[in-house]
Amino acid sequence: MSLIVQKFGGTSVGSIERIRNVAARAVQAQKAGNQVVVTVSAMAGETNRLVGLVEALTPDYNRREYDVVVSAGEQIAIGLLAIAIEAMGHKARSYLGWQVRFLTDSVHSKARIEEIENARILQDLAEGYIIIVAGFQGVTPSGDITTLGRGGSDTSAVALAAALKADFCDIYTDVDGVYTTDPRIEPKARKIARICYEEMLEMASLGAKVLQTRSVELAKKYSVPVRVLSSLEEGTGTLLTVEDPIMEKVLVSAIAHNTSEAKITVLGVPDSPGVAAAILGILSGANINVDMIIQNVSAGHETDMTFTVSKGDFKQTLDMLTDAMPSLGAKGVVGDPHIAKVSAIGVGMRSHSGVAQKMFQALADERINIQMISTSEIKISVVINEKYTELAVRTLHSVFDLDKERGDTIGG
Amino acid sequence: MSLIVQKFGGTSVGSIERIRNVAARAVQAQKAGNQVVVTVSAMAGETNRLVGLVEALTPDYNRREYDVVVSAGEQIAIGLLAIAIEAMGHKARSYLGWQVRFLTDSVHSKARIEEIENARILQDLAEGYIIIVAGFQGVTPSGDITTLGRGGSDTSAVALAAALKADFCDIYTDVDGVYTTDPRIEPKARKIARICYEEMLEMASLGAKVLQTRSVELAKKYSVPVRVLSSLEEGTGTLLTVEDPIMEKVLVSAIAHNTSEAKITVLGVPDSPGVAAAILGILSGANINVDMIIQNVSAGHETDMTFTVSKGDFKQTLDMLTDAMPSLGAKGVVGDPHIAKVSAIGVGMRSHSGVAQKMFQALADERINIQMISTSEIKISVVINEKYTELAVRTLHSVFDLDKERGDTIGG
Repeated sequence: MSLIVQKFGGTSVGSIERIRNVAARAVQAQKAGNQVVVTVSAMAGETNRLVGLVEALTPDYNRREYDVVVSAGEQIAIGLLAIAIEAMGHKARSYLGWQVRFLTDSVHSKARIEEIENARILQDLAEGYIIIVAGFQGVTPSGDITTLGRGGSDTSAVALAAALKADFCDIYTDVDGVYTTDPRIEPKARKIARICYEEMLEMASLGAKVLQTRSVELAKKYSVPVRVLSSLEEGTGTLLTVEDPIMEKVLVSAIAHNTSEAKITVLGVPDSPGVAAAILGILSGANINVDMIIQNVSAGHETDMTFTVSKGDFKQTLDMLTDAMPSLGAKGVVGDPHIAKVSAIGVGMRSHSGVAQKMFQALADERINIQMISTSEIKISVVINEKYTELAVRTLHSVFDLDKERGDTIGG
Repeated sequence: MSLIVQKFGGTSVGSIERIRNVAARAVQAQKAGNQVVVTVSAMAGETNRLVGLVEALTPDYNRREYDVVVSAGEQIAIGLLAIAIEAMGHKARSYLGWQVRFLTDSVHSKARIEEIENARILQDLAEGYIIIVAGFQGVTPSGDITTLGRGGSDTSAVALAAALKADFCDIYTDVDGVYTTDPRIEPKARKIARICYEEMLEMASLGAKVLQTRSVELAKKYSVPVRVLSSLEEGTGTLLTVEDPIMEKVLVSAIAHNTSEAKITVLGVPDSPGVAAAILGILSGANINVDMIIQNVSAGHETDMTFTVSKGDFKQTLDMLTDAMPSLGAKGVVGDPHIAKVSAIGVGMRSHSGVAQKMFQALADERINIQMISTSEIKISVVINEKYTELAVRTLHSVFDLDKERGDTIGG
């Protein structure tokens, strides 16, 4: 008998009929001999509705009370799902974050889970209940409701699976697994049967939307066996697991891309200590997150600093830095919102040299100019002109042999 | 400095603009030097929406989970109200039933409050917070969410006022107080400045919808000074208080009416022990509440039994009893949905005789036939043909001198 944590997003519980489908899936898993815990998000549209009510009152809302309002969405969903399962003749019991309890810090609206009490759930499971747990929410030690930030239900599910030492944490999504690249861009993209946590973490960070980054970090930390499955069709999905020798034989496991960022360069700043910190200080003061940062070796006493921000922050960033030119001693600020970041990811890079060279050459052969480069131990990212996104993805997918079937271990 | 509990219904928090109005009222009460606790219902329509979702899944839903779903409505309302008050620059903090804690029994969907912990609220009040408490909900000692039944927010407010030993429990409604009768029927109806708990209890039970019966029972039990006030305009409203000598000088304080019931008679049942219990057992088995019950003195070995049920249960009751005729040994079942119950209420009846005679004579003078009579220490109810409702109300309002002003103590 396995203990399985299932997670369903808002779309999967977006209507009465869909709630019944989720109930049927949970019952099916129990009938197959498993102990079943289900985590759900709020019904599709509900969290946006609640956030809308809050923001209609004031843009500068009290965060503690925001959490009280928005956590109600998951509360409705878990009660309805439990009712649906009971109506099918099976025992079900729902729990909110404060009931389980999902203890978090007190950073309202983006709290972090610190501990999960599992005694009550384990006892209920032993008595044959299907347990429904509200995603996205927790409680502080002093009893205030917290939420984990948008998309936090993935994190709830993985944390719960870790706390319950579950055999599997099944994340149901609208795709049937993790792909070697975006199938809308490269029809030859293949489903990956197994992927290691590090690779999935890079993919999540680099724009693959299938799992929330924090949930992958948590899965890695506690070695939770996460499966990404389709909520629409049966299948084996993609298993997140620890790195193994077979994975290391493959140079590159996946190609990710992201066109949601823009590039900004501050020109001719003095090449002296503290300038980079001054520039980034301006941005963090306005809550603008910076992704890639590059500072060239200086020619003389000046240097250029280039970084990427999300497209939504582009204009504000450009304006703020232009205003700050005198205080920074900069000679100019230029920006380009028409960029794409394309990345090759694979734990195999650790033990193989030549991946970067192969990647840059392939792009050069297609006459795609590389504007920025950023690397980690297991990925190489390049920033290019946005119009070459599809061409670059397809080129790299092919040059690293991702088009080809590889049997059960890596390929789908 | 007074401690005031304010209660606002769903209509009063039915939109962002109305939530701001309630926030302004709470702030105004605090600025006037009071400690303020606010209890609110769910936004208008929200509870119905949530109940609708539950009932769309199954008519025979799990009650524990029903409570999880429907209690979310008040959760949204308290968070929004706290945000609105904070946005006005005042300190506010919301609490759910499980946070306060409103301890109840575990009769889900109609739980009764057993105890309210007040330490956290009293401390917050001392620190200058306006406290917002979710109406309608509580928690069992083992940590399951409960709800108090529809309209339970009045009860929450009164219970909270009792637990906090509040100076006033102000119930804001869409009327400006309790009237001697329904002003839509008798334009001469006057607002009552002070009414005792017993009279209000009879009025609530007899169809005056201004306060929920259970909340009046609780106010009586703990002598909570409840004020019924208009949420739309300033005014002194009606104060619920203990009986006093001046009230007793008045024969009748108010005329209530109710046209939501139907009458059923079981004819010719054996006049033997257990027959009444058998008839009522059939109804309670189907969760049908019976109001007035009359059994005539028998002529021979048979008797007739007449009672009233709500109009919504009329047809089912008629069908069930007709089916049960053989087992009951009854000769027939007849019913009439076109009835009205009109009642005269007043603690003065305790010390004055002749009220019933005066009432029956006044109705006879208008040629209104009395079908059933039921009395208590402080009220007399008659069932009449529904078409005479307005005539009976106006006649009794006049005959008991309720049309006339009586100064500050009783009249408005």
